[in-house]
Amino acid sequence: MSKDPALKTLDINDIIRLQRNRYPVLLVDKVIDLFPGESATGIKCFTYNEWYFPGHFDDDPNVPGFVQVESLAQTFILTFLCEEEFAGMKTSFVSINNVKFREKLYPARFCICMLL
Amino acid sequence: MSKDPALKTLDINDIIRLQRNRYPVLLVDKVIDLFPGESATGIKCFTYNEWYFPGHFDDDPNVPGFVQVESLAQTFILTFLCEEEFAGMKTSFVSINNVKFREKLYPARFCICMLL
Amino acid sequence: MSKDPALKTLDINDIIRLQRNRYPVLLVDKVIDLFPGESATGIKCFTYNEWYFPGHFDDDPNVPGFVQVESLAQTFILTFLCEEEFAGMKTSFVSINNVKFREKLYPARFCICMLL
Amino acid sequence: MSKDPALKTLDINDIIRLQRNRYPVLLVDKVIDLFPGESATGIKCFTYNEWYFPGHFDDDPNVPGFVQVESLAQTFILTFLCEEEFAGMKTSFVSINNVKFREKLYPARFCICMLL
Amino acid sequence: MSKDPALKTLDINDIIRLQRNRYPVLLVDKVIDLFPGESATGIKCFTYNEWYFPGHFDDDPNVPGFVQVESLAQTFILTFLCEEEFAGMKTSFVSINNVKFREKLYPARFCICMLL
Amino acid sequence: MSKDPALKTLDINDIIRLQRNRYPVLLVDKVIDLFPGESATGIKCFTYNEWYFPGHFDDDPNVPGFVQVESLAQTFILTFLCEEEFAGMKTSFVSINNVKFREKLYPARFCICMLL
Repeated sequence: MSKDPALKTLDINDIIRLQRNRYPVLLVDKVIDLFPGESATGIKCFTYNEWYFPGHFDDDPNVPGFVQVESLAQTFILTFLCEEEFAGMKTSFVSINNVKFREKLYPARFCICMLL
Repeated sequence: MSKDPALKTLDINDIIRLQRNRYPVLLVDKVIDLFPGESATGIKCFTYNEWYFPGHFDDDPNVPGFVQVESLAQTFILTFLCEEEFAGMKTSFVSINNVKFREKLYPARFCICMLL
Repeated sequence: MSKDPALKTLDINDIIRLQRNRYPVLLVDKVIDLFPGESATGIKCFTYNEWYFPGHFDDDPNVPGFVQVESLAQTFILTFLCEEEFAGMKTSFVSINNVKFREKLYPARFCICMLL
Repeated sequence: MSKDPALKTLDINDIIRLQRNRYPVLLVDKVIDLFPGESATGIKCFTYNEWYFPGHFDDDPNVPGFVQVESLAQTFILTFLCEEEFAGMKTSFVSINNVKFREKLYPARFCICMLL
Repeated sequence: MSKDPALKTLDINDIIRLQRNRYPVLLVDKVIDLFPGESATGIKCFTYNEWYFPGHFDDDPNVPGFVQVESLAQTFILTFLCEEEFAGMKTSFVSINNVKFREKLYPARFCICMLL
Repeated sequence: MSKDPALKTLDINDIIRLQRNRYPVLLVDKVIDLFPGESATGIKCFTYNEWYFPGHFDDDPNVPGFVQVESLAQTFILTFLCEEEFAGMKTSFVSINNVKFREKLYPARFCICMLL
């Protein structure tokens, strides 16, 4: 049985419409393979031209862990907010568990968040 | 047996010297009751004049969860970086577990992080 | 005769509604003990994560005098703007007199402005 | 008797060298007619591309009073810091008196501060 | 035959109304001698208090070439957007040709763009 | 005859070392296929979390033309600055010609600049 009828892709304009985070705390650029209420893959590009690289660190710019966590969380939340009954709601963290950071992320890299 | 000989307080100038995060990703203002290598209490003030309130959210400014996590993490890291052999090292997240968010934080509030 | 019936407290959402300054020039977080048209006590928290600390000064972050003056002025203006007939008006300085700066203010401090 | 031998002009590179304020709290662009220890004329250009216009106010950008005060104060301080014995010192406000604001300042205007 | 009946001057509030660029990418402060659809003179003030001077360059702040190009382009576009039928449209570059940079621009200077 | 001996790749740390632009005017993340003095391919990622998207435009974030031009120019300049005799020099535009913009660029896209 196919899930395809529900499959969605969200571009940045959809993301702006569906959730309330704005610059400089909107940390996902695109969502693909989205099954509403179930799973999603978020894409966040990293470029040196972001506010956190000068401060983390001036001689070795890499993505702070808390930015990676937030990117993951915003992808997760969009699996719900993409349903019209929840669109535009403000959301908050309740808890975080079992997050592991496997390698440093530099500018010119993607972060691909898969939620299952 | 008293731990007092090791007890330290770190003000913002100490924090700048001991760790490498800088504006706008330095998210702890003071550390009190610091027992090096063991425990610490971090203080982070919140004021509307911070970069994340306009984006989270324009009509209800409250502290994003990822900022609270990072504030906690930076306090934790200072329990090690306060020892001169580690001072000034750059650090990264390895994992996060069991973080719970109990209530929304607004401007004019303190966040007090206790690590045991 | 009691003034109490008029006593008000303004949180950040009230302040956003009643006056027009926005980030990064909204420099009061809370107003307590407010007697409309008469007096007020403003609270502004200071945290390293504000735009003026890196520039004033990189090796000794302290609150610039002009930020303290503006914080005081915004508290003063709210004693009028809190009355519904003036709510949301844009205001300007006309003159400044007799402001004294008693000590340096660092991150993790409050500024409490009392106007009598 | 002429004061001319002491007359100085400071461009932005001189100002950066002589005093410690940096972006975004360095609010004077040029100093002309400077008699060290006596008087100076500071020039500050205003352009919409400054951090305070969106917040003061989104539908009527004009220069906040506290920015004008600081611009004046930085010109004043340079009458002293331009002498090599004081160059590069950090300074603070002690008091402010008798400042009057005569008209609103918009982008594309100069502020010329004369200190006598 | 006089062009005078069509002659216009645009202040910052007109510019905000007629085109869609906003801080920090609105790079013209005033337009004078505007003949709709034909020619215009744009004025952009430069002050150290702009976001690009710390990065270009910390020890020699001067206006990046791409900012000058954009300032010129925004003046050009306003010769069309000033006509009510186009007001408020979003615009994009199609091509750039024959731009020459004659000298370095520093804070406290004007850039005057003449389009013929 | 092979050009391979000269072939270089520059990551963000190399770019920071070789040229003087810094945040928020460093607009290339990586350079590949670099033949010093001859040609290069620059990579610039785009993510919503950059300063120009809120201003260009709040309801349709796309990359301003002047940012694309600068990204191209910085890649070009690195074909020279990558040679140690020029490393770290400050550079300026002299002229721009024949730049064409083919399509709008959105967050989650790369810009690949090829210079021949």
